Amino acid sequence: MRHGAAYPGAVSSASTGAAGVDPTVPAGVVELVGLAAYTELAEFGLLAARSVDAPTLAARQALADGAARALAREHALLRLVSDGSAEAAGQVLGPFAGAFVDFDVRTRTDDWAEGLLRGVVGHGVAQDFARTLAAGVQGHVGTSLRTVLERPAPGREAEAAAGADAEAVRLLDDLAVRDEVLAARLALWGRRVVGEALSLVTVHVDTRPHLAALVGDAARTLGADGDPRSWLVARLTAEHTRRMDRLRLAA
Amino acid sequence: MRHGAAYPGAVSSASTGAAGVDPTVPAGVVELVGLAAYTELAEFGLLAARSVDAPTLAARQALADGAARALAREHALLRLVSDGSAEAAGQVLGPFAGAFVDFDVRTRTDDWAEGLLRGVVGHGVAQDFARTLAAGVQGHVGTSLRTVLERPAPGREAEAAAGADAEAVRLLDDLAVRDEVLAARLALWGRRVVGEALSLVTVHVDTRPHLAALVGDAARTLGADGDPRSWLVARLTAEHTRRMDRLRLAA
Repeated sequence: MRHGAAYPGAVSSASTGAAGVDPTVPAGVVELVGLAAYTELAEFGLLAARSVDAPTLAARQALADGAARALAREHALLRLVSDGSAEAAGQVLGPFAGAFVDFDVRTRTDDWAEGLLRGVVGHGVAQDFARTLAAGVQGHVGTSLRTVLERPAPGREAEAAAGADAEAVRLLDDLAVRDEVLAARLALWGRRVVGEALSLVTVHVDTRPHLAALVGDAARTLGADGDPRSWLVARLTAEHTRRMDRLRLAA
Repeated sequence: MRHGAAYPGAVSSASTGAAGVDPTVPAGVVELVGLAAYTELAEFGLLAARSVDAPTLAARQALADGAARALAREHALLRLVSDGSAEAAGQVLGPFAGAFVDFDVRTRTDDWAEGLLRGVVGHGVAQDFARTLAAGVQGHVGTSLRTVLERPAPGREAEAAAGADAEAVRLLDDLAVRDEVLAARLALWGRRVVGEALSLVTVHVDTRPHLAALVGDAARTLGADGDPRSWLVARLTAEHTRRMDRLRLAA
C-alpha cells in the first residue's frame, strides 16, 4: 500500500494530497508532526556531531546512541501520519527544511560543552513546543502523538535515561559540578540560546496559520487565560528554567 | 547477569578478564570484534557528518539512516563477545580508540563527495579486512561473526541496500554519471584513500600479534599460498577494485 492511492475513499483535509501521507489527518497536525520530526532529525545531527569530537570513547558512544534514538523517534513520528516511505518523509519534513539555519548561525560555537548545551536547550524548547501543541489535538492521532512525544513522569528515571539527550544532560551536569567558572559561562550561554530558540518559535507561530490555530486549541484545552501566544512563550520559558535547574546551571 | 561474574566457571583465555566480556572467547577474536565494531562506530561518524551537511533533505535523511544502521551493526558485533553493557563496550573498543586518527588526518577533505568516498573506501577496506580474518575463526563464535559481517551475495540487491553505506554508494554513482570531470577526480582520490587504508591495515597486523595470527589462520582456511600478509593486501586490493568498478570510478 505504499503508493498514492494508499487511503482510497478517504476525504482529504490536507491541501497536498501527497503520496504516502494519510489524507484523513488534518493539515495542521501533519505540519506539527513535520516540525516535531524535523526537530528530531536536527537533534540527530547535533548529537552525532558532538559524538564525533567527544573527549572520551564512552561519551562518543553514548552520544552516538542518543543520536540513533532521536532518529528512531523521528521515524515513529513520521509513521503517525504517513506510510513511512522516503517520499512521505520528504513531503512531511519538506516545509521545515532549513528552518533552524538562523538558530544554528546565531548560536554557533567552537566550544564542545557550549555546543552540547545548545543542542539540549534548542531541542528541549522545540520538544516542549511540540508537546504543548499536541495537547490540543483531538482524536486518536492526538492520543498517539502525545504518547510519542510524552516526557516520562518524575521518578521514572529509567525511561528518562532512554531520551535522546539524556547522556548530553549527564555530561553537562558532570562538567558543571567540577568547574564553577565553566558552569557560570554555560548558564549565561543557556540564556542566550533560549532567547534565540523562543524567537524562532514565535516566528513559526506568526508565519504558519495552522500552527497558530493549534496554539489556540492547546490554550483552550489546557485552560489558559489571556493571549495564547504570550501564554505559550511563558510556558516554554518556565520549562526551560526547570531544565536549567536540573542541569544545575541556573543563574 | 550484567556484572563481572556473568560467565561463572568458564576458563578465561582472554588476558583482561574484563567485566561483561565473555571469557570463553579467545583474546584474538575479542580483538577482531573490537576492530570491526570500532570500524562501524567510525562509519557512524563519517555518515552522520555527511548527513549534517548534505545538499538535499533526502540525502540528509538517507545518510542519517545509514549511520544508524552502522551503529546497530556495531552493537550486534559487541553482543557477540560481551553482555552488551557500556563497560564491556569500553573494554572491547578501548584498544582501538584513536586507531583511525592518522587515516583521518591524511585523507582530510573539504569536498562533500570526496568526504563521502573516503568513508565508503575506508569502511569498505576495514570491513573486507574483518571479513577475511573472520574466515579463519573456529567454533560457533566464528559462525556468528561471519553472519554479522557477511556481505550479501551478488544479485541480492535488496539486502545490499540495507547496508550502512548503500545510500552513500548510490549518491556517489549519481554524481559520477552526471559529471565526468568529477568522476575522474574521485577515481584519483579513491586511489589515494585506498593507499592510506591499506597502509593502516598493515600497521595493525604488524603491531598486533593476535591479528597477525588470525591472518595466518584465514590464509590457511581459504587455501592461500605464500606469505599471508602479502596475500591479505592483494585480496583487499582486489576487493577495492571491484568496489570502484561498482561505483563506475575505475581509472
